[in-house]
Amino acid sequence: MPSSAGWLTRRLASLLQAQLHPAAVRLELWDGSSPYAAAEPSIGTLVVDSARTLRAILINPHLQFGECYMHGTLEVRGDLEAVLEAISRLSTAPTWRERLSSTLAPGNSIQRARRNVHHHYDLGNDFYSWWLDEQLVYTCAYFERPDVSLEQAQVAKMDLVCRKLRLQPGDTVVEAGCGWGALALHMAREYGVNVRAFNLSHEQIAYARARAAREGLAGQVEFIEDDYRSVRGEYDVFVSVGMLEHVGLHHYPSLAAVVRRVLRRSHGRGLLHFIGRDIPRPLNAWIRRRIFPGGYPPTLSEVATRVLSPARMSILDVENLRLHYARTLSHWSRRFAQAAAEQVRARYGEQFQRAWELYLAGSEAAFAAGSLQLFQVVFAPAEAAPPYWTRADLYRPRRHEDTENDFVYSVSP
Amino acid sequence: MPSSAGWLTRRLASLLQAQLHPAAVRLELWDGSSPYAAAEPSIGTLVVDSARTLRAILINPHLQFGECYMHGTLEVRGDLEAVLEAISRLSTAPTWRERLSSTLAPGNSIQRARRNVHHHYDLGNDFYSWWLDEQLVYTCAYFERPDVSLEQAQVAKMDLVCRKLRLQPGDTVVEAGCGWGALALHMAREYGVNVRAFNLSHEQIAYARARAAREGLAGQVEFIEDDYRSVRGEYDVFVSVGMLEHVGLHHYPSLAAVVRRVLRRSHGRGLLHFIGRDIPRPLNAWIRRRIFPGGYPPTLSEVATRVLSPARMSILDVENLRLHYARTLSHWSRRFAQAAAEQVRARYGEQFQRAWELYLAGSEAAFAAGSLQLFQVVFAPAEAAPPYWTRADLYRPRRHEDTENDFVYSVSP
Repeated sequence: MPSSAGWLTRRLASLLQAQLHPAAVRLELWDGSSPYAAAEPSIGTLVVDSARTLRAILINPHLQFGECYMHGTLEVRGDLEAVLEAISRLSTAPTWRERLSSTLAPGNSIQRARRNVHHHYDLGNDFYSWWLDEQLVYTCAYFERPDVSLEQAQVAKMDLVCRKLRLQPGDTVVEAGCGWGALALHMAREYGVNVRAFNLSHEQIAYARARAAREGLAGQVEFIEDDYRSVRGEYDVFVSVGMLEHVGLHHYPSLAAVVRRVLRRSHGRGLLHFIGRDIPRPLNAWIRRRIFPGGYPPTLSEVATRVLSPARMSILDVENLRLHYARTLSHWSRRFAQAAAEQVRARYGEQFQRAWELYLAGSEAAFAAGSLQLFQVVFAPAEAAPPYWTRADLYRPRRHEDTENDFVYSVSP
Repeated sequence: MPSSAGWLTRRLASLLQAQLHPAAVRLELWDGSSPYAAAEPSIGTLVVDSARTLRAILINPHLQFGECYMHGTLEVRGDLEAVLEAISRLSTAPTWRERLSSTLAPGNSIQRARRNVHHHYDLGNDFYSWWLDEQLVYTCAYFERPDVSLEQAQVAKMDLVCRKLRLQPGDTVVEAGCGWGALALHMAREYGVNVRAFNLSHEQIAYARARAAREGLAGQVEFIEDDYRSVRGEYDVFVSVGMLEHVGLHHYPSLAAVVRRVLRRSHGRGLLHFIGRDIPRPLNAWIRRRIFPGGYPPTLSEVATRVLSPARMSILDVENLRLHYARTLSHWSRRFAQAAAEQVRARYGEQFQRAWELYLAGSEAAFAAGSLQLFQVVFAPAEAAPPYWTRADLYRPRRHEDTENDFVYSVSP
């Protein structure tokens, strides 16, 4: 058992507590002592197991908070998401470490992209099926009303994307980064379009192909196990949901070249759906190390100037859905805790389970606090007429739906 | 009468004709000759009156096309807007002259801003009343359906802005650049908010105040003859429609400081409605000389990185309404030709009348061709929750309106 804290350690603890104080988060040392005045209200407590853990978190919080939590040397008492959200709200500007890390980050060559994708997406379809919706949609859902289920919200998101793209029967669509294929199949089934969908993950492509065959859509949807940079041909529609944040700034010029090359100039249109930022800032260092190597959430400006302008596209429509992602992650966290945690621990070990628990809660916190955004951007070739005059058709009730607007939303389902 | 064209002049005419050829626009010299093959179809003809006019247009087309048209040394046969649109589609990249002029453009100090505003807006309320809608709204209208009048479309635009801002009774609103006051009065009358509206134009402010008094809204709307940089206090809502394009890049930091200072961090929200670009490029040189000194239509990125990021705002929603501005300008052009041209010529002279005719047609052409954009950007403080979850409430039919979507729009009314 570690000894009780000495003078230097107490000074360091006070320093960390001073940083956490505006978030009303308490720090507690291994000996049960705390620099936080007992009378003050708090929303949760960080418990560190040693002076070593305390020092690590003080020196490099963005990386070491996650490392220590994962290894169990840091415990969080109270609601994990609430504590992380309060801490997220403290840090609005990028640190010097973050600025340096953006400069030094390696680019995602096709080889590296392949490795990064395997790291995350080839954990096994089982793993994701334990806590995602039934169609395995691993991107922000769209909660048209607060009472819809995650399943319904994922279908609503896919349909919103289709409506924003004004899909017409017979359109040819290229999808960059198609996950387990749910959107490609939705587009083909519900809108009668023909889709070529690209993905580097072998497991996901195999799953998507099997599903297409089972649903009789194999003639309309072709799943291709390849990098988006290999897309050839001309298409009416370009769509990419949840891939841009894996591309990395260095490779935006090649994405721009692909968009410019493959989208028909006369009437093409496209949509990018991605995790973004208000100001340039790298993804959290721990998430990059343990969850998403190579990940970078861009600002709208970075996407506009490095992807869409070089592709000679006009921006037609941008929607920020960050609270929808917070709510999506809240669903995932709950399912992960209730249905997956045991199995994950058994198959992958406790560290892995704690890492994913933290990643889901931390991401929800970041979207809720506004340090991450979720942008959907609709674009079309600069010289083409926009494919619509108003956005009203996106929101027309399809049957006799209630058109009242007294919904009360919250991030938690 | 000028002599017939010599060898050198014919060479220059061929050069200019070669540039115009992809636009199917014919060049005709003062002697009736043309380098354009008679058999080829054309959409219109430029008729130059002398070798001097020809040289001027060749050397500095962006400025001299307008100068020559205004002075009557250049005539356009055929539909003026169609010819200008075809020419607009030719030039997608900024020229070296344009890049240089952006670098050298003077900033709009408060004094210069005042002069620029007087140049344009103090022509007299009469002048604008001859060809604007009855409420004198001098910004892009919103055509919810193709069959609405300009009057209806201007009301629809004001209401769309109010809905995007989710105005609530009792909200305090600051408006930067309020024109003749129509939006401020609409917000107060229809949504029960309190507005402080800023404008540098003495004539416009006087008109707006009189109208507020007449409508019994003087207690709710205060019109202030001052620069937007003088705004003080804290507000729930910041709105600016059609001012940003007069601010100039150099002054975005002071606009950002105003937005940051005056908007409540807990629940504030704002909207910028402005003429913009896909890629950075100065306003046409002739328009800057004759119509809008100091004007600059920014890209979305310039607004995001120089105004909204420094103000610590998140972008929530962007809509590009460029075809709506083309249609608005088409209405204005038609009214100008039918109802105003005679009176304008009588009061201001023929050059002035031709300058405005060209400016309206050229602007319609630029929006129709996609060289100008019209952005509406909704934003909120980065740390505040967005004021809504979905955009559906913007498009809910208010009474029992038709919800079919078989509208056929065109730019011309």
